[in-house]
Amino acid sequence: MSVHDLETPSVLIDLDRMERNITRMQERCNELGLAFRPHTKTHKIPDIARMQLEAGAVGIACQKVSEAEVFTSAGINDIQIPYNIVGAQKTARLADLALYNRITVSADHPAVIAGLAEAARANEMAIRVMVDLATDIQRTGAPLDDVVDLAKRIDADENLHFAGLLVYPSNVTMRPAIQEALARLNEAGIGVDTVSGGGSGAALHAHEVPELTELRVGTYLFNDWSSVSKGWCSLDDCAMTVLATVVSRPTPDRVILDSGSKTLAADRWDNLHGYIVEYPEARIYQLSEEHAHCDFSACTARPDIGERVHVIPVHTCVVTNLHDVIYGVRGETVEVSWPVAARGRVW
Amino acid sequence: MSVHDLETPSVLIDLDRMERNITRMQERCNELGLAFRPHTKTHKIPDIARMQLEAGAVGIACQKVSEAEVFTSAGINDIQIPYNIVGAQKTARLADLALYNRITVSADHPAVIAGLAEAARANEMAIRVMVDLATDIQRTGAPLDDVVDLAKRIDADENLHFAGLLVYPSNVTMRPAIQEALARLNEAGIGVDTVSGGGSGAALHAHEVPELTELRVGTYLFNDWSSVSKGWCSLDDCAMTVLATVVSRPTPDRVILDSGSKTLAADRWDNLHGYIVEYPEARIYQLSEEHAHCDFSACTARPDIGERVHVIPVHTCVVTNLHDVIYGVRGETVEVSWPVAARGRVW
Repeated sequence: MSVHDLETPSVLIDLDRMERNITRMQERCNELGLAFRPHTKTHKIPDIARMQLEAGAVGIACQKVSEAEVFTSAGINDIQIPYNIVGAQKTARLADLALYNRITVSADHPAVIAGLAEAARANEMAIRVMVDLATDIQRTGAPLDDVVDLAKRIDADENLHFAGLLVYPSNVTMRPAIQEALARLNEAGIGVDTVSGGGSGAALHAHEVPELTELRVGTYLFNDWSSVSKGWCSLDDCAMTVLATVVSRPTPDRVILDSGSKTLAADRWDNLHGYIVEYPEARIYQLSEEHAHCDFSACTARPDIGERVHVIPVHTCVVTNLHDVIYGVRGETVEVSWPVAARGRVW
Repeated sequence: MSVHDLETPSVLIDLDRMERNITRMQERCNELGLAFRPHTKTHKIPDIARMQLEAGAVGIACQKVSEAEVFTSAGINDIQIPYNIVGAQKTARLADLALYNRITVSADHPAVIAGLAEAARANEMAIRVMVDLATDIQRTGAPLDDVVDLAKRIDADENLHFAGLLVYPSNVTMRPAIQEALARLNEAGIGVDTVSGGGSGAALHAHEVPELTELRVGTYLFNDWSSVSKGWCSLDDCAMTVLATVVSRPTPDRVILDSGSKTLAADRWDNLHGYIVEYPEARIYQLSEEHAHCDFSACTARPDIGERVHVIPVHTCVVTNLHDVIYGVRGETVEVSWPVAARGRVW
């Protein structure tokens, strides 16, 4: 099948670039003596996780229990879910998942730990739990002063196993806190299996945080325009594009594509919604649900109705999640159609 | 099944409110002597389209051919696709669809019309085509001065039928252009079947544009926080909420919910990502893919880890499209689970 046979909009993955991204990240981790744990939220496809494991990854990361269930069903058994799993139903599902698989979760509060312990006890098994350390992004995470207490609670419970420290993102600015946390845990006589860092930007500086034993990165697989803009990769590293058709040319400078927010997602970077490969000076200034509104005033060339273009999205992970199928392409050949198996798994 | 048995995050539809919204919009159109054509992009569910038809709608609107295919497969036959259908594959699919169903599309350019004519000719049938008139939103649409020429091209082609004027949104500001377009078409001897207006805001002022014969509205079915903010409806009219769990309380003022951009979409209104029913003063200031970051500093009460809340999303249509199933709820009872049949149909 040729790319020309595909309908638009369609999500295309340049296989050469994707394979290069997989290899390069694994090699970098190998050089640094870091275990690599790719985050599957970016692709949600078991076959791609297998490629990452074959390249040398130690396991994968998923962001929700229901996402992990798709991968264990596909035979992938070492999964980290760096998330507070809260609620009787969810922790019960987690405990079932962890019966036959090596599952690790994180926690930042005694209430979360208590919930995990209860579910593990009911299932007569032990769940691996890391302590989630608060970082610069101010999302979840326990303050440094609470780390030892939380680790002790996990360690003391016969149905939980303290699996180490989780840091997201593990930027260089976090190094002092990581060192201090490890020192205090050591002093308290608590062993630390893993120091799991992560984040696409932090990955570039992993060599500056030698305390890390493992790295979790997701976006590197496909990359996207915000990653290029942040200096994390180059345009040539972008494996994902959205193939779109010009459906309207209402004025000399305005071009409408058939890829709206239900295709590209509504994420913005620098107030724009993506980058058109064939027309680098074009600006996707607005998205309706099924239309991309583009300003071509800075371009010398203009496309005709019916012309196809490739759009590098702002944020790759959310684009994958909008589509039931994405296409692996080499040159002009569609080599593989991947069902996005874990699409929409948010529980 | 009770709502308490549902996992989070889940999309809930308050059936009483939805039914009231369906009835109220249909009654308003009846009073104004307008045909009502609900836009199914908001729900993407055949059963709900049937409810809208049973209440008195003349047909439905879909935004893409592949979306329409789902509804014709479910036995719904009168579908308007207010979109430029461009490309040999798409127009061929459209022509097949139109063989056994009453399908109407729109066009704003001779190239689009030529493509439709070619596909219809190859299929030995006629496609109904409206002229899309440029409006204030500056998306697609032909300028007023091109309307008669485009209508003549459609009218002259034996495989096309000129189906009238499409105006989106049909705000009161468009009335002069609509009147002028109709006058010119009349002068040219071209009959106008339909003047199809639409848009949630425009619908409130439809009585001020008596030239309209039909109204297309989608969002009214569920409503959302941006609609409330724009004054198009009240909070009590919002039928869609996202049920979410508090998973982290890292600081006294910060609350993290398990509903991120893969649940609520990334759409913003007034720089916020939704409205928490139980905590109206809370601000959802940021979304990660699987976390909602909320600022509770203005709230007197604070939730505990594990507490469930209802979030009214910014934009209902894109939320439906993220989920495989949504739940119809009456009181505490989950009355129905609807597969979102046309989810992800963007071709």
